[in-house]
Amino acid sequence: MQKWEAVEGNLASPRGFRGAAVAAGIKKTRGELDLALLVCDAPAATAAGLFTTNLVAAAPVTLSRQNLVESRGRCRALVVNSGNANACTGRKGLQAAKESARAAAKLLNLQPEQVLVASTGVIGVGLEPALITSQLPALVENLSIENASAVARAIMTTDTFPKTCVLRSEVGRNPVYLAGIAKGAGMIHPNMATLLSFLTTDALIGPRTLQNLLRTAVDVSFNRVTVDGDTSTNDTVLAWASGMATVGVRPGNASWAWFLEGLTELCQRLARMIARDGEGAKKLVMVEVRGARKPSDAERVARAIANSPLVKTAVAGSDPNWGRILCAAGYSGATFDPDKVDIRINDLLVCRGGMDAGFDEAAARKELEGKEMTLRLDLHQGSASAHIWTCDMTHDYITINASYRT
Amino acid sequence: MQKWEAVEGNLASPRGFRGAAVAAGIKKTRGELDLALLVCDAPAATAAGLFTTNLVAAAPVTLSRQNLVESRGRCRALVVNSGNANACTGRKGLQAAKESARAAAKLLNLQPEQVLVASTGVIGVGLEPALITSQLPALVENLSIENASAVARAIMTTDTFPKTCVLRSEVGRNPVYLAGIAKGAGMIHPNMATLLSFLTTDALIGPRTLQNLLRTAVDVSFNRVTVDGDTSTNDTVLAWASGMATVGVRPGNASWAWFLEGLTELCQRLARMIARDGEGAKKLVMVEVRGARKPSDAERVARAIANSPLVKTAVAGSDPNWGRILCAAGYSGATFDPDKVDIRINDLLVCRGGMDAGFDEAAARKELEGKEMTLRLDLHQGSASAHIWTCDMTHDYITINASYRT
Repeated sequence: MQKWEAVEGNLASPRGFRGAAVAAGIKKTRGELDLALLVCDAPAATAAGLFTTNLVAAAPVTLSRQNLVESRGRCRALVVNSGNANACTGRKGLQAAKESARAAAKLLNLQPEQVLVASTGVIGVGLEPALITSQLPALVENLSIENASAVARAIMTTDTFPKTCVLRSEVGRNPVYLAGIAKGAGMIHPNMATLLSFLTTDALIGPRTLQNLLRTAVDVSFNRVTVDGDTSTNDTVLAWASGMATVGVRPGNASWAWFLEGLTELCQRLARMIARDGEGAKKLVMVEVRGARKPSDAERVARAIANSPLVKTAVAGSDPNWGRILCAAGYSGATFDPDKVDIRINDLLVCRGGMDAGFDEAAARKELEGKEMTLRLDLHQGSASAHIWTCDMTHDYITINASYRT
Repeated sequence: MQKWEAVEGNLASPRGFRGAAVAAGIKKTRGELDLALLVCDAPAATAAGLFTTNLVAAAPVTLSRQNLVESRGRCRALVVNSGNANACTGRKGLQAAKESARAAAKLLNLQPEQVLVASTGVIGVGLEPALITSQLPALVENLSIENASAVARAIMTTDTFPKTCVLRSEVGRNPVYLAGIAKGAGMIHPNMATLLSFLTTDALIGPRTLQNLLRTAVDVSFNRVTVDGDTSTNDTVLAWASGMATVGVRPGNASWAWFLEGLTELCQRLARMIARDGEGAKKLVMVEVRGARKPSDAERVARAIANSPLVKTAVAGSDPNWGRILCAAGYSGATFDPDKVDIRINDLLVCRGGMDAGFDEAAARKELEGKEMTLRLDLHQGSASAHIWTCDMTHDYITINASYRT
């Protein structure tokens, strides 16, 4: 098996998929793409999904969760809209989601539970189902491999660029593809419904295996990104496997590790794009913690630093303020000896043994002026490590969020 | 016993206290007050203290904790400086704190463990003890009731106003006083060492009782304020009781509830001043949650809302974005039914049963344009309630924190 390589393409680069998008008038700005359909034509296709942990889950989250169970992971289509999150919309919201799924199923000759739905946009505003159902016939008509490229644009909200990634490998001489799109921007806006990601592959994978692979990959990718610490009502990651490539992935077989590596890389690439495109963000920051006693300690420290408004504003101002980093580590809940901590900005040591390392201020500032940087902590307590991606917090974050709804 | 009433005064309004402050050159801006001494002249005085839960605790926190134990709560003086937090300064930092305490003890004819110390300011920069010890003789010389007013100014960092509160009551015809000062600004800046508060009273209270009273009052006041969710390395609340008023406070006696009421009101008034003066804040926000199944659920929901950057930026923009409020409640970890939640901005219902209440947008905006407001949630699950004070998040928060250190 070859290594996975990034190539040009879209969600339909893996065999068996087609897509289309349209401007349905759900977004306020007329003419912007805001509705998309993705279909897998392989009858034996499988699907898996992970959803927000927020108690306040949007209607499409509720329905998609249910449909994955009822179809036993045999979902073959997705209806996704932006401009309205269909969250906090009560029974009517759930009806609207069901109507979309039913209408798409009928046109595609599927069972209603074989259609997944996702929404992103304003919370608490009723979603008129006719806006979606009236467009479905045209979307079905336009389904194609080429038109699948538009799906990534149709799910954007405050994102500044569409996020697509395609990986290719070979087994024997047969190509295998993994593809994905995502939207993020404010890692989470309750009002915008943050993270959506849709992944496709033509590998042959059973539904339970696909679910396990997805959970493993998401845990070290999308679950390691934070923009503002808020968890949205609409977060959804869905994956489909068409099975049209000759390679099969099963627990314990030779292709398992190879496929998981590809899926993880796909998710991590998309996750980094999301962090880089955080609302108002100018810089992509990786927080890397090593030397922790246990993995949960490493993750706690990394998350506390990545979520600290004080760290994120210091990064925005290129201020090598290692005290804020150490302080956030201190209130993370992890156990460690503060007097042993070393902190580096990229490779520059700024704090040694919990104290000022006597670094060159100008050099540190320069490291922070880059577009991408790593804040590295070594706790010197053990061998566990963790990393989290985040972004800086700028004036634009305030501007975007002070009046998003109106 | 009379009700407690707010009156003019300072930390030395309760009998038995004197104070003084000086510009010692610890702050960068020349001539700004940055060092203060507070002394209790009553030999039988008691003291109590509460400190940061951050694992990374500043040297003065370590020393004061220790001195309260070693003196068995018989501390009678405080040396406090701003401009340097003496945090992340290692063994030298602890030595500096000890030298200050020792020098003050000698001049005041006390044991070293009878002197408490506190610091606030930049983290990770060595504190030159001579800056403090050289000023102590003059401070002792200038100790007076009048000069105690300057202590509140000497502990300011990014605070925009000094925070002092004095309450008066009478027992029989004898007056009893409670007084307090505080500094906050960014509820927490790891780089600034956030919350300091010092409280005095002339009631007669044993050290263990004073500690219990302080914990109870702080739990519903200072521990209910959040500006940015960061927990500083230097947070310190100290209280002294001179015993020079005739009234004694003991668990179970008649004056217990009366005194706790006064102490709680004192702490809550100071806590609200801190929230109102959050970095860049224009608005004081109380988040009030009722109808929770248990108190911990109510507090979780209130804290999640008060800490959400998305809620705080929406308040800054006077955007009645109830979806963000409900969303933050949803990820708080509390258990409740989202379809039962009502949300009010002051008295205006904006969300009923987890859905848009069909409110007047302009009226809601007007409520949010005030200087003070309450975001009220009723979970309709039980009878537990909680409240948290916070502030809005504005462009000025970013400006202040993007380049604080330099």
